Amino acid sequence: MAKAQPIRLDYNNMTADLLDNQGFSKEQISNTLKQAKQAHTQVEAKRGQGMQGWMNIISPKDEVVASLLAAAKEIRQKFDYFVVLGIGGSALGPLAAFQALCHFRHNELPKAKRRAPKFYVEENIDPERMASLLDVIDIKKTMFNVISKSGSTSETMSQYLIIIDILKRELGEKAKEHIIVTTSKTSGSLIKIAEKEGFKAFYIPDGVGGRFSQLSPVGLLPAAVLRVDIKGLLAGAIYMDKRCKNANERNPALVNAALSYLSIKNGKNISVIMPYADSLRLMGDWYCQLWGESLGKARNNKGEVVNVGQTPVGALGVTDQHSQVQLYAEGPYDKVITFIEVENYRKEVVISAGLQDVPSVNFLCGHTLNELIKAELHATEYALTKSGKLNRKIILPMVNAHTLGQLLMFFMLETAYMGALLNIDAFNQPGVEEGKNAAYALLGRPGYQEKARALAQAAAKKEQYII
Amino acid sequence: MAKAQPIRLDYNNMTADLLDNQGFSKEQISNTLKQAKQAHTQVEAKRGQGMQGWMNIISPKDEVVASLLAAAKEIRQKFDYFVVLGIGGSALGPLAAFQALCHFRHNELPKAKRRAPKFYVEENIDPERMASLLDVIDIKKTMFNVISKSGSTSETMSQYLIIIDILKRELGEKAKEHIIVTTSKTSGSLIKIAEKEGFKAFYIPDGVGGRFSQLSPVGLLPAAVLRVDIKGLLAGAIYMDKRCKNANERNPALVNAALSYLSIKNGKNISVIMPYADSLRLMGDWYCQLWGESLGKARNNKGEVVNVGQTPVGALGVTDQHSQVQLYAEGPYDKVITFIEVENYRKEVVISAGLQDVPSVNFLCGHTLNELIKAELHATEYALTKSGKLNRKIILPMVNAHTLGQLLMFFMLETAYMGALLNIDAFNQPGVEEGKNAAYALLGRPGYQEKARALAQAAAKKEQYII
Repeated sequence: MAKAQPIRLDYNNMTADLLDNQGFSKEQISNTLKQAKQAHTQVEAKRGQGMQGWMNIISPKDEVVASLLAAAKEIRQKFDYFVVLGIGGSALGPLAAFQALCHFRHNELPKAKRRAPKFYVEENIDPERMASLLDVIDIKKTMFNVISKSGSTSETMSQYLIIIDILKRELGEKAKEHIIVTTSKTSGSLIKIAEKEGFKAFYIPDGVGGRFSQLSPVGLLPAAVLRVDIKGLLAGAIYMDKRCKNANERNPALVNAALSYLSIKNGKNISVIMPYADSLRLMGDWYCQLWGESLGKARNNKGEVVNVGQTPVGALGVTDQHSQVQLYAEGPYDKVITFIEVENYRKEVVISAGLQDVPSVNFLCGHTLNELIKAELHATEYALTKSGKLNRKIILPMVNAHTLGQLLMFFMLETAYMGALLNIDAFNQPGVEEGKNAAYALLGRPGYQEKARALAQAAAKKEQYII
Repeated sequence: MAKAQPIRLDYNNMTADLLDNQGFSKEQISNTLKQAKQAHTQVEAKRGQGMQGWMNIISPKDEVVASLLAAAKEIRQKFDYFVVLGIGGSALGPLAAFQALCHFRHNELPKAKRRAPKFYVEENIDPERMASLLDVIDIKKTMFNVISKSGSTSETMSQYLIIIDILKRELGEKAKEHIIVTTSKTSGSLIKIAEKEGFKAFYIPDGVGGRFSQLSPVGLLPAAVLRVDIKGLLAGAIYMDKRCKNANERNPALVNAALSYLSIKNGKNISVIMPYADSLRLMGDWYCQLWGESLGKARNNKGEVVNVGQTPVGALGVTDQHSQVQLYAEGPYDKVITFIEVENYRKEVVISAGLQDVPSVNFLCGHTLNELIKAELHATEYALTKSGKLNRKIILPMVNAHTLGQLLMFFMLETAYMGALLNIDAFNQPGVEEGKNAAYALLGRPGYQEKARALAQAAAKKEQYII
């Protein structure tokens, strides 16, 4: 195996050494690191327990990996389309790995070049979108991967009901060969449905919430189908986990957590993630769920009302230099920007022609797009630092399964440390219950009559405020 | 022509009547509306002047529309691929209209169903992405639309240089038939290049910045190629413009600006746009540029340092209920959420099967996805209102060219009013110059030696902060 290439964290532009006024002093950083070390102890103490099961799944048994690879191979042989029905972490992780590690135009490649089924992740219930999907897939050549830990996710289960109905009408008995479920082995209704219907199933280990599930079969099965090196993904995660074993200033996730915590304490309520690579754009979306849902909490562990949370924003370099960087440079001092740099892209594109008589264009001649995108990143870092805006950078030597595994683990560990620093539960999501129950009531689900009455009694909207 | 269907603004959940504590009082709203009326006067006074040229382009001459439609028809006849080379507004507008008004899986439809070329908007310079594009298009059957007002946008011009080089190698003299430029008629280098090379050109009228250019040929040509009803788009914009002629409480863009201004003044530094329709997701990205780049400014019109701006965030309903709504519900009171509701989707999908023995799933049976997505929107509105979070809703009777035209004009007018309310220039972007110049310096562009020296003299990064 090749020597592992570590991803690196460059936080120069968060420090008072590089960023006048807004940067954090050595004292602030070292004091916060002391708190962070306690957070590390707390997180490690619960490793593998409760909802921290995700910390241990990165070393699955060999037979789990083997069965995923075998299933993936069979799927590639039998099917031309692979559709994930899932939402939240069940969609964002598979999408992030797909975009990072497959051809950017995978579905448009001819079959021989694609070497894997066309891939879709249906993470919404928009009827127009569902109808569009059915227009482009051949259901007889499609494998559906229904992902829901509980089996009671309304969105995913609606999609399942629609699809199984079509499959049974078109294929009768053979319908069951077109569905694989990924769900809890021990609880919930999807495993029961799978047993009754005879669907193949993969299991989400206990203690793994949706946003921490990419390195479980939730993410590994779709990745394996797409020929992603899932052993490399896991090895990368293990590699990062080892780097984060100790609570010191060389633990990148811990240092990043300390800096994030300092940012929040200093009024930075926005966290921008800005990869300079199209392949990592959806990795940004995955981060946004992890960060937003884990840290956005009304109460702390003592039950006190705190209403904490930093709003994550996904941006793309260089694209958003022409959309958001004006705001980042000149707007309020309310955010911290995390760039992601790729040192070596997997392709090189040369700008060989020039235009002698157009100096504003001619200087590009002889450069590569690789040089251009990197110059723009470094220039943007420089400009934001000059305007006093907190920014830092995660450097990937290259985008591959190993570095992606590192990055996933880096962010999950940082999030766990942040939960401890903020003294909140980073692993629950009580704030979505009210909306879920209201939706059940609006749809007339038995048992929600009382909620329906509450909704009916809520203050009615006034016509004067609708224009 | 069918009777126009007006889009509506529902701001009940921004008012103290519906939202205890956090909602705005009648007095606050009416006082702010008074200020907004002055803003309206200022904006109207400059209609069509300076960088407010965009206010007048929605009524182009008949021959302009005719020539766009003729060019589009010819392109459809001759080409199988249509690639926009553009960034910022030159990409976001075309993408928004494409996603809203074309089939959701357009590029994957068979040619007979697609009835228009495959469509790509290359709004980044990632070398991996450029290489991927070249893998899936047949350059001999591709029309490239190079969009840059000045012709000195490094990203777009790099792409142009790469493409023209390939075209000339493959097609010699005929290369020029594969490029249409959309640019300024009166200035900049792209028009000169077009004249020299013999490219067909469409013109961006004066006073139309990138983020206000969707209703110019920037957006209209790609839309026309894709068989979007561009007359409907323009008619929708005109319809909204008329609704906004008067400065009163029935002017939806003005009322929305007043509410946005109140939000900012009350510390809401985040503006979330959350359509409940996949077709409007990229409309959200278009809004994010418009809002971020227009209002994120360091100085006001008096030259005083203000560092204003509200950070726009794109979200998608229901998808982000499983990612961001936990934070919106329980996190800080730092944002205003703007939902977009679609009353009538263009498709209906019925959930006909049920599961008698699984109550948590069976209640979905007999409903449509249309009902489900709407129930979830209404439930989320209810839950966020209950947790005291400012939210409002824009209602589209349906997504079509006319309502999209209304929506574009609504947001552009709101942004203009906001500029006046904040007493800033909403139409410039001085904050990106520093980064642009630094990138030129890093790439060795002649004339930027001094900037290169400044970069070299900037404080060096310290190894200790890279882990």
